[in-house]
Amino acid sequence: MSAKPERSAKIRLKGDGGAESPGPAIVLVEPQLGENIGAVARVMLNFGLHSLRIVNPRDGWPNEKAIAMSSGAAVIDKAEIFDSAASAIRDCSYALAMTARPRESLIPVFAPEEAAKEIKQRIDAGARCAVLLGPERSGLANEDVMRADGIISIPVNPAFASLNLAQAAAVFAYEWAQASALAISPSDLDVALAAPREAFEGFLAHLFGDLEAARYFYPPDKRDAMERKIRNALTRAEFTEGEVRMFRGIIKALSRGATES
Amino acid sequence: MSAKPERSAKIRLKGDGGAESPGPAIVLVEPQLGENIGAVARVMLNFGLHSLRIVNPRDGWPNEKAIAMSSGAAVIDKAEIFDSAASAIRDCSYALAMTARPRESLIPVFAPEEAAKEIKQRIDAGARCAVLLGPERSGLANEDVMRADGIISIPVNPAFASLNLAQAAAVFAYEWAQASALAISPSDLDVALAAPREAFEGFLAHLFGDLEAARYFYPPDKRDAMERKIRNALTRAEFTEGEVRMFRGIIKALSRGATES
Repeated sequence: MSAKPERSAKIRLKGDGGAESPGPAIVLVEPQLGENIGAVARVMLNFGLHSLRIVNPRDGWPNEKAIAMSSGAAVIDKAEIFDSAASAIRDCSYALAMTARPRESLIPVFAPEEAAKEIKQRIDAGARCAVLLGPERSGLANEDVMRADGIISIPVNPAFASLNLAQAAAVFAYEWAQASALAISPSDLDVALAAPREAFEGFLAHLFGDLEAARYFYPPDKRDAMERKIRNALTRAEFTEGEVRMFRGIIKALSRGATES
Repeated sequence: MSAKPERSAKIRLKGDGGAESPGPAIVLVEPQLGENIGAVARVMLNFGLHSLRIVNPRDGWPNEKAIAMSSGAAVIDKAEIFDSAASAIRDCSYALAMTARPRESLIPVFAPEEAAKEIKQRIDAGARCAVLLGPERSGLANEDVMRADGIISIPVNPAFASLNLAQAAAVFAYEWAQASALAISPSDLDVALAAPREAFEGFLAHLFGDLEAARYFYPPDKRDAMERKIRNALTRAEFTEGEVRMFRGIIKALSRGATES
């Protein structure tokens, strides 16, 4: 990438408390509803973002509704208030503006995932970064978009394109968590271990034996194909050793059930 | 600058007609706040999802606050109401449950992106799919998670993990929009179609009934746990409709086998 971290290193400022996890600042420009500010604060912290900056909140600050919707996210208490978008990003060397995809743009346009990666690279190199989001009704003013180094555009249904402010923030914050090391793929999880092949084969032999005894395989020349189908279906389940024992118990119970009852 | 604006152009979505874009149903189980239901409906349509199913909404239906928060999303008018999670996914052959990352799991756990791809493949192969989300306060009940074929777990900040319901839906919907715009190679597509939930539940009921008759469930207070284990193991196999019929035949054969031989 062509970032010039030297510049941002020079204008590095003291932290705001969230120094331990330097994500980008989220800058809400003239937000109207306290509920949205609170929802943004909550989802920021959900995804590991700590620095919230607010430009001229319509209903003043602090805002009770914002606090209520934040569900206790500390982000809201540490929010900083500014009187212009320009002053809110004055200490940042890289800022992206979230806005609808423009018909043409002189600055780069990023999908959220790309934007998060761009910012991550710069932050790793020591830069301070910001993401700007505009007022609910109108979005960012052109002059604020122009101040940014690029645009974040969330691809939406063109027939219903207006994203709620907090949802737009959620999408970026989620991608930030993916891009920063926070994201641990849940599929890495301790998936239970399938039984050794031998145990599974023993179970199948047990099942086939009992089915033979129950005269299930009919006509006899179809037996191979029938066994194959059963094997196929059960193999897909990847039974654990415990499950193999359980199903042997089930076969036993069913096979003796009719006689005993 | 490493901007790649082409990608966002690629994931342009189809217009909002409804039927022509068959995404998964979003199933809200016992949602408490109308505002959240409305916010879910809005973000669904933002990202091209149309089918909303609601199980026992706490404040009844229709709900004025849900309508207000939906910002006119048609999804809210077409929402369907159900009296249980089971009935809400009866016609679906594949369902994923959104829940916190479990310590261990016998069903697969997917990150949102993987989950969206899994569902996309199945829908392309003709399956009906669903995503279940639980009540705000408690999340999905264990028994509803057990009904699912897998878990969607959003990786969050462990120190502040509670995502707002609509934000969780937003993350999935966003990933759905990403996945649904991606061309999936045809070789991934021969996923055999799993049986509709209803057929699978019928098979389980048959099995549990015969096991009851065979006095398999002992001691009786362990029955629920035993049934859950069986359900878990068999759900993973994603039996087709033909396989469900085959296994019902097998149960029948085993159950009568002992008497006849």
